Amino acid sequence: CYAFQMQTVTLIPGDGIGPEISSAVMKIFEAAKAPIQWEERNVTAIKGPGGRWMIPPDAKESMDRNKIGLKGPLKTPIAAGHPSMNLLLRKTFDLYANVRPCVSIEGYKTPYTDVNLVTIRENTEGEYSGIEHVIVDGVVQSIKLITEQASQRIAEYAFEYARNNQRASVTAVHKANIMRMSDGLFLRKCREAAEKHRDVKFTEMYLDTVCLNMVQDPTQFDVLVMPNLYGDILSDLCAGLIGGLGVTPSGNIGANGVAIFESVHGTAPDIAGKDMANPTALLLSAVMMLRHMGLHNYAKNIEKACFDTIRDKKVLTKDLGGESKCSDFTEAICQRVRDMD
Amino acid sequence: CYAFQMQTVTLIPGDGIGPEISSAVMKIFEAAKAPIQWEERNVTAIKGPGGRWMIPPDAKESMDRNKIGLKGPLKTPIAAGHPSMNLLLRKTFDLYANVRPCVSIEGYKTPYTDVNLVTIRENTEGEYSGIEHVIVDGVVQSIKLITEQASQRIAEYAFEYARNNQRASVTAVHKANIMRMSDGLFLRKCREAAEKHRDVKFTEMYLDTVCLNMVQDPTQFDVLVMPNLYGDILSDLCAGLIGGLGVTPSGNIGANGVAIFESVHGTAPDIAGKDMANPTALLLSAVMMLRHMGLHNYAKNIEKACFDTIRDKKVLTKDLGGESKCSDFTEAICQRVRDMD
Ligand SMILES: CC(C)[C@H](C(=O)O)[C@@H](O)C(=O)O
Ligand SMILES: CC(C)[C@H](C(=O)O)[C@@H](O)C(=O)O
Repeated sequence: CYAFQMQTVTLIPGDGIGPEISSAVMKIFEAAKAPIQWEERNVTAIKGPGGRWMIPPDAKESMDRNKIGLKGPLKTPIAAGHPSMNLLLRKTFDLYANVRPCVSIEGYKTPYTDVNLVTIRENTEGEYSGIEHVIVDGVVQSIKLITEQASQRIAEYAFEYARNNQRASVTAVHKANIMRMSDGLFLRKCREAAEKHRDVKFTEMYLDTVCLNMVQDPTQFDVLVMPNLYGDILSDLCAGLIGGLGVTPSGNIGANGVAIFESVHGTAPDIAGKDMANPTALLLSAVMMLRHMGLHNYAKNIEKACFDTIRDKKVLTKDLGGESKCSDFTEAICQRVRDMD
Repeated sequence: CYAFQMQTVTLIPGDGIGPEISSAVMKIFEAAKAPIQWEERNVTAIKGPGGRWMIPPDAKESMDRNKIGLKGPLKTPIAAGHPSMNLLLRKTFDLYANVRPCVSIEGYKTPYTDVNLVTIRENTEGEYSGIEHVIVDGVVQSIKLITEQASQRIAEYAFEYARNNQRASVTAVHKANIMRMSDGLFLRKCREAAEKHRDVKFTEMYLDTVCLNMVQDPTQFDVLVMPNLYGDILSDLCAGLIGGLGVTPSGNIGANGVAIFESVHGTAPDIAGKDMANPTALLLSAVMMLRHMGLHNYAKNIEKACFDTIRDKKVLTKDLGGESKCSDFTEAICQRVRDMD
């Protein structure tokens, strides 16, 4: 029996299957008596003063107050000039670290077993600077921006993460053989952070080599830290190793405890509203959130209930290889959570 | 019995295990009576007029004359400012397309079967422009350069390759959701090439999605075309799926028939000179070379002899899971080639 004060979390249910999987998570949290109160907000971008796209003020205000958010999938905007909501959220709250643990799920077969790694992606700059020019007709340049400050911040985050999560090693992933100055700066900051964290083993590796080794034997990796685009690629690759985006949690971490946890799969409009969606990725993201908030026992119980349900194979959604509805899968997890009491 | 005129090829044996695996390839070619005459050249970079790094004039002259080269691994230069030899060669001969077929090898077990795809990488620009600046202290930018001309050239190459090699589809790999102008231009040129090659199916896909899908089911891919850095990553990833760089061939193709085929693994200094190296990657690159030269029957026979030897499992080098020397493995292939006569 734990006694914690209720904490309020901003919930962004999102589009498509977002509301269904969000309500699944809420049900499971309720069954677990997790001391979380949800404050629902919509984050569809609006045009603010000066024509800049921004998230609605009441969503911003809620996040500023609660500091912690849980977010379902958002549909990709089609209006010209409309920013990706994911990027806008990362920017608005300066969520500089994207953290994705990839851990093999017992009972969910893929070609790999015993994967247990974490990708930590710099989330604010690099190839995502958004700065591009036409130099002359037919010649375009995109600018990859690497700063000392952002590199240092993410490098230190990675080592602190490793230390706090009992992980033995950090690998810096780079192409400093090609981008000597930019990736060189990133790498230098990783080396400096390594110097300050001698209890954590440090290695450096080229991105191409990491990809090759990853598909041959992912168990050799532990924590990986890298610039923005490399993280975009590697985090998806690693998700693929353990079963895809439907089962992979993600957290976007900022300074002073601010963080948004999210499922990174799409909105699946084809099955939206049909009680067929798989809430696992959002649920595991919510479990990450609980750990971030220090609610470790709730996290452990919910995670166990989810993994036990998957391993048990009796009640699974279609994408997990079963025939059950989202609501039945959810109820199966709730039941296990209740039984732990 | 075929009657072809002898053709001369520039052979760059390379460093470390390079000479051993080159001589293995020469032996097998001799056994197959392939109408190839080798002209050996060393390409260690030298400083030319104005302090620019260049490949030795006699190597350049040989390549200019023969147009076709076969190259073993070259050690990474450690002198400051010394360019990567691979990059220097691509640049010197304007080898704009890097082509890497990745085909599952029967008898060599990996988590994947039936992989049969080709990555086609733009080899001259993109993130490899080499243009970088310090903007202010602690802020570095690297420039990714995408041109209409290079994008069009590689896009057309990919579709022509698909057509000439009986391949059904081409997938353009990009991040035009993030680099809207640069990857956008690349993508536009792919779409235009697709319009001109309606017999080949065309799809577009984000790089992160490709990586995720690739590790889940590589059999869904056929020909993939992409900017430089994405190709660096994906080609290594795909090599990993079928057994790594020790068994993956590579060709760098330029205009007017100029091409250099190469094994892309390292120089393996630890086993150099010990008759332990695996010549498969260089041999399969040489087979690609034969096809490029129109010598299809020689290519087929040598390739079959190599694959049969691997499938047979009796004479394999250590990295392939056997206990044989490089020379024994080579002789086993030679024997099979001779038996085909
Ligand atoms: C949606 C898209 C802008 C985003 C990215 O490229 O970062 C996505 O792929 C991700 O990984 O969160
Ligand atoms: C050696 C290095 C410069 C090169 C690259 O990054 O292109 C290598 O990884 C390759 O794929 O040929």
